[in-house]
Amino acid sequence: MRYKTTIEYDGTQYAGWQIQPNAITIQETIQQALSEISGKSIKIHGSGRTDQGVHAKGQVAHFDLDTSMQTKNLQRGLNAVLPRDIRIHKIERVHDSFHARRSAVSKQYRYFIYNGPIMPALERLYKTHIRHPLDTSRMREAARLLVGEHDFASFSSSRGEDEPTVRILEQLDVLKSGRTIEIRTRSNGYLYKMVRSLVGFLIRVGDGSEPIESASELLEQKRRSARVPTAHPQGLFLWRVYY
Amino acid sequence: MRYKTTIEYDGTQYAGWQIQPNAITIQETIQQALSEISGKSIKIHGSGRTDQGVHAKGQVAHFDLDTSMQTKNLQRGLNAVLPRDIRIHKIERVHDSFHARRSAVSKQYRYFIYNGPIMPALERLYKTHIRHPLDTSRMREAARLLVGEHDFASFSSSRGEDEPTVRILEQLDVLKSGRTIEIRTRSNGYLYKMVRSLVGFLIRVGDGSEPIESASELLEQKRRSARVPTAHPQGLFLWRVYY
Repeated sequence: MRYKTTIEYDGTQYAGWQIQPNAITIQETIQQALSEISGKSIKIHGSGRTDQGVHAKGQVAHFDLDTSMQTKNLQRGLNAVLPRDIRIHKIERVHDSFHARRSAVSKQYRYFIYNGPIMPALERLYKTHIRHPLDTSRMREAARLLVGEHDFASFSSSRGEDEPTVRILEQLDVLKSGRTIEIRTRSNGYLYKMVRSLVGFLIRVGDGSEPIESASELLEQKRRSARVPTAHPQGLFLWRVYY
Repeated sequence: MRYKTTIEYDGTQYAGWQIQPNAITIQETIQQALSEISGKSIKIHGSGRTDQGVHAKGQVAHFDLDTSMQTKNLQRGLNAVLPRDIRIHKIERVHDSFHARRSAVSKQYRYFIYNGPIMPALERLYKTHIRHPLDTSRMREAARLLVGEHDFASFSSSRGEDEPTVRILEQLDVLKSGRTIEIRTRSNGYLYKMVRSLVGFLIRVGDGSEPIESASELLEQKRRSARVPTAHPQGLFLWRVYY
């Protein structure tokens, strides 16, 4: 039987989603909890990896398990065993054809920036600190140039794979509330470190280091350069996966 | 020269404000940073202690220091040396008669409750989790009975001191937004653990364990009992000190 689960986590203490040697990851922690509850060795498949320090409000994963346990009890058991920085919000029985990554239609990420001279102690884990004032109307204009179907090679870190780099960016909104700037992005597929690269570039447009038109220029260039830094992970949230 | 400073902190990792042996406290951490910056041993005086795990949005303290440093530079230096979970938001020169505790006119605390079945991973450090639904209109009615000048002996933990227990509670508001309940309180003086005791009692009124009128009854009783539990520290914030 296949299960779909919706997971929230605080990525601060983890080396990202994906299992790796000599580091504690989210995937591994959930798999261990599942084994503890079910007595079986279970592999879970996420909708995608999140990097070290990145958070998730609504990561989705699937796993296969033959059990007579009700989903409510499975969920309760998992939350009782998991550390408090990982929470299972939902478990549903799904058709065997469901796949957390392959069935996903699109994903929304949100990135939070605190834009002011002193980073508040109580917001430090969930926002990135940018001291210099950012001009959000400039950021919005550059973002508009990036939305749509483009080759995003300049806005990703190659993993040395021969992956096609054309993607459809459905949404790239820049919102402001007080000293907090929020960047929302939605796409049917992201390249490696694409969201943090888009944010890193928009920050440079916002602080005046790059003109707005660089957005189009860099899309044309199709090659990563120092003009596109990777923004820090702790402001980034995998917000929602759409199926 | 006397300085007044406004401090924000995340109390999660500290054994409270006040210096004590074999534990790291906020006061001690700031004093060490001040010594590092100024080369002198400096004692800081807070507006009051906060318990282990309690946060502050606007704690105020004063200290004496003879220096030619500008306050802006003193502040920058301190924030550079301090861990990120303590931030100095302001340093001002004040008259020698200013005293962070004795000059305070009143203090506002805010307490945050997450009221729902599953505690969100990303809110766990700053809210207390109450699973059972709380009736905020009942809590509001009980709160109304507690506002004003009363003997709050039933709502504090005696420290074995012969302290007078009559206080003026200027504000005790119960706000609700989504699944978050916020309790705001303002007073010219609090007894030991008074805010957490008031919150602990209001939670019992909200979940139906106590009738609304218990508020008046307990004020009359003037003696701590099991009917007034102390709410967890991590939902509590020293929000603002008024002078």
